Amino acid sequence: MNTKLSLIIVISFNLIASNCYTVKPGPLVIATEGEVWPKPYKRIYSDSFHLINPSDFSFNIVSESCNILTGAISRYKNIIANQTFPHTRKQVKNEEQISSWKKSNFVGYLESLDVILMEPCNDDEIPTISMLEQYEIKIAENASVLAATSVWGILRGLETFSQLLYPAEGHALILNCTFISDFPRYSHRGVLIDTSRHFIPVQKLLKILDALAYNKLNVFHWHITDDQSFPYQSRDFPSLSEKGSYLPTHVYSQSDVAMLIKYAAARGIRVVAEFDTPGHTRCWGNAFPQLLTECYSNGVPTGEYGPMDPTKEFTYKFMKQFLSEVVDVFYDRALHLGGDEVDYDCWATNPDIKHFMEANNISSYKKLEGYYIKKLIDISEKLKMNAIVWEEVFTNVADIPENTIVHVWKEGWRNTIKEVTRRGFNTLLSSCWYLDHLYTGGDWIKFYNCEPTDFKGTEKQKKLVMGGEACMWAEVVNEYNLESRIWPRASATAEKLWSEEDADEIDSVKRRLEEHTCRMNKRGVQAQPPNGAGFCEM
Amino acid sequence: MNTKLSLIIVISFNLIASNCYTVKPGPLVIATEGEVWPKPYKRIYSDSFHLINPSDFSFNIVSESCNILTGAISRYKNIIANQTFPHTRKQVKNEEQISSWKKSNFVGYLESLDVILMEPCNDDEIPTISMLEQYEIKIAENASVLAATSVWGILRGLETFSQLLYPAEGHALILNCTFISDFPRYSHRGVLIDTSRHFIPVQKLLKILDALAYNKLNVFHWHITDDQSFPYQSRDFPSLSEKGSYLPTHVYSQSDVAMLIKYAAARGIRVVAEFDTPGHTRCWGNAFPQLLTECYSNGVPTGEYGPMDPTKEFTYKFMKQFLSEVVDVFYDRALHLGGDEVDYDCWATNPDIKHFMEANNISSYKKLEGYYIKKLIDISEKLKMNAIVWEEVFTNVADIPENTIVHVWKEGWRNTIKEVTRRGFNTLLSSCWYLDHLYTGGDWIKFYNCEPTDFKGTEKQKKLVMGGEACMWAEVVNEYNLESRIWPRASATAEKLWSEEDADEIDSVKRRLEEHTCRMNKRGVQAQPPNGAGFCEM
Repeated sequence: MNTKLSLIIVISFNLIASNCYTVKPGPLVIATEGEVWPKPYKRIYSDSFHLINPSDFSFNIVSESCNILTGAISRYKNIIANQTFPHTRKQVKNEEQISSWKKSNFVGYLESLDVILMEPCNDDEIPTISMLEQYEIKIAENASVLAATSVWGILRGLETFSQLLYPAEGHALILNCTFISDFPRYSHRGVLIDTSRHFIPVQKLLKILDALAYNKLNVFHWHITDDQSFPYQSRDFPSLSEKGSYLPTHVYSQSDVAMLIKYAAARGIRVVAEFDTPGHTRCWGNAFPQLLTECYSNGVPTGEYGPMDPTKEFTYKFMKQFLSEVVDVFYDRALHLGGDEVDYDCWATNPDIKHFMEANNISSYKKLEGYYIKKLIDISEKLKMNAIVWEEVFTNVADIPENTIVHVWKEGWRNTIKEVTRRGFNTLLSSCWYLDHLYTGGDWIKFYNCEPTDFKGTEKQKKLVMGGEACMWAEVVNEYNLESRIWPRASATAEKLWSEEDADEIDSVKRRLEEHTCRMNKRGVQAQPPNGAGFCEM
Repeated sequence: MNTKLSLIIVISFNLIASNCYTVKPGPLVIATEGEVWPKPYKRIYSDSFHLINPSDFSFNIVSESCNILTGAISRYKNIIANQTFPHTRKQVKNEEQISSWKKSNFVGYLESLDVILMEPCNDDEIPTISMLEQYEIKIAENASVLAATSVWGILRGLETFSQLLYPAEGHALILNCTFISDFPRYSHRGVLIDTSRHFIPVQKLLKILDALAYNKLNVFHWHITDDQSFPYQSRDFPSLSEKGSYLPTHVYSQSDVAMLIKYAAARGIRVVAEFDTPGHTRCWGNAFPQLLTECYSNGVPTGEYGPMDPTKEFTYKFMKQFLSEVVDVFYDRALHLGGDEVDYDCWATNPDIKHFMEANNISSYKKLEGYYIKKLIDISEKLKMNAIVWEEVFTNVADIPENTIVHVWKEGWRNTIKEVTRRGFNTLLSSCWYLDHLYTGGDWIKFYNCEPTDFKGTEKQKKLVMGGEACMWAEVVNEYNLESRIWPRASATAEKLWSEEDADEIDSVKRRLEEHTCRMNKRGVQAQPPNGAGFCEM
């Protein structure tokens, strides 16, 4: 025997333990069946199961009802009807299996689920930061019930119920007996969509809202304008979009916005509008150049414009009227005022700003920024709105009102959020959930590994974290890659914000996300694969 | 005046020169109008222009014709008809502009383009590695012509012609007078699609072929099988997909494949099939376990399988019959044999392999790999096929036949390709065009900055580079993110492989790619934005 060869063989044998033939035919991660995403607070499992024939199944409202409830029940009846697979091969329960189960675990066909709403709901109810989303589901041999205090809990419970079902042979669905008690860890769980860098057709936004509901996310943070374009068709200032949108067709009309808000509300989703100022406003100047700071060079205007001009009364008068309209149109009680990345360079060139600062004893641009933003927060408070601002407002401005919500987005978030909560502010986290940051491969685990309480602070401080948002900045996102870039990556954020810390083992998380992604695909969401090679039964 | 403040102002003034207010409303990069992607070899510009009314425009074939030619003309008539924009605002030529142009530069409505094919084409012609793609276009005041030696050149010229048109007010298109002489730098310009890790419906593959043509790419490298699934429905061995596909519906039937090849040929695109062996074959073993190496531990089989078993005559008999079928079905003269990432660990455990190596005086696993791959190349040569192999075959195997094409894909490609060409092999480059590698932002410039001749070698060596391919490995790619992940990133590869080195300034490249991406969107390709904030007139 060749010595060299035998050496190779010995080495290779030694390697086997650590480097075995892990490649298998078939998918990298086998999807779970009938598991819930995000993971519920508490679930008891059973091998006993019902079968459901979607055409012979109904929800039985045994309490008061309202439009939101009946609308949701109609939606979920459709979703369930589309969950069957007439032609399957793998992951299938064949006749023989079913019949062997029948002997022991099959408890019969379930024809209805009782839906019990504890408190009355009304037809024009809208979701709020304090809405109750708690619910319970019991699927037992002799009684199956979904119960919640509020209609929002019923919505979350219907989503969970639809996820419990998984396909049997033929047209039936399997529903294991179970008990679920569930509620969210955080009250603010959102996705930010930037519709300024690229215009996203409203039909695509509705698809995002559908998917938010499938992930029990409850905030659509609409970063509707930015420097590049102004697609919001204002009621009071229509020239903003006439002159500031990319194209006359690239606008959201008043009826588009109203329709979207109603669609969201029906799914228990708040629409939080952001009209970012005083920076990120360049396109406002197409219609109202007097809102912006004129930049100077060598004592003469350059024709360029900087952030909003904080020295003019016109600015505040305009913003007061504009925000009054916004509050009227987007009737959520939170208003995102932006306030990020204010560029001082242009302010520094403008002689009027220099004189104003001297006259008012404002000794720095940070203080000038503070002067502006505090006036904005004051307007917002007079409109009975709760202001949300990006973290720079906290960092740069000394004395912002105490009920301002600070939205943390930069790197080094652990230190920022520690300071923000030490000073008693409510806070939202986005730093680790920037969907425009791309990594090779299935990168949702990076999102999943971000724990919002992973900072040095007291229990009281940690309670000031209201939740967070995954952010879809749209510089290189259009209607074609929007959905697949968001999903299932934002699903990771959704579970971090709904489920308990360390709610599940990572292998199980992967398997559940594999199922959840196929479920989203089946419902028309263009989610990309989460884990690696695989397939969905469609 | 506050001293601190004045200091800030001075500093800020100093900053202005380098850090000015670059944010503008509107798109980051303004698209060109009527520019061509990839950039032609030679183009002469003129301000004189025709208008085209698509409904009153036709191609006039003034030579022999064939199905490929008439089919292409019919396609491009449709494409041109869909290029007008009745409602535009920006980038628009208004009445006044048109009429001021008319005085000087408007030369009239163009009603037809003469299409001259120098050599006859026949109805069953197929594209080959040596097809001629050269063409010339002359758009002049009194005569407008597209001429080429072969029908493939006419196809490329029709694509260019369609790109020269840009919208005027109303329904007309503008066509500037111009002269273009164009041909590709490299003869093999492809995109690899992996349909094993995720099954891609055939309709989606046809959309990829459309887009290949829009980018003058001429090879669809179909990495049709891999470890995970076997979607090719073999004529002689149907159990391969019956047992090896993800689902019974996740297969490409013989008629699917025939249709796809015909569709590609009509667009001047070769379909180069890859059936990767001896590694990446795990799912072949679902139907034919005897093809694969049984892995052993402590003298007994573990139930796991490694690469193909190179010691059994059955393997070669099987592969000979299978490749004969492949050659028959995919009638391109190149056959990609794979040969990458052969894992020796399983071979090292198998006692039969040990005995075979001893009996045949094969002293290393590399030599065993060489034993296998040389037999495969021999089969392929007997079938009159030109074998393409991944670079490991070159690196690991001492004496591969001289007309083998080496496909370089790993990092350190400059050294590899230097060695490959030094030893006289033709080569293809993919290392810098891996579409599954993701970077935040508009990352096509990374692809664009890769120059295939940027290695140390003689002119003769550099001539051995036949071209390259952008590779779309599909671990985290399904039908939903496939198109937007490929386009426009592979368009960068397309221009590198078609156009001369340093054909254009980067600012102009950005502007042309902005136009080209919108053009693709308009034609139904779900390309993502290339550069940053912007919009397409649709």
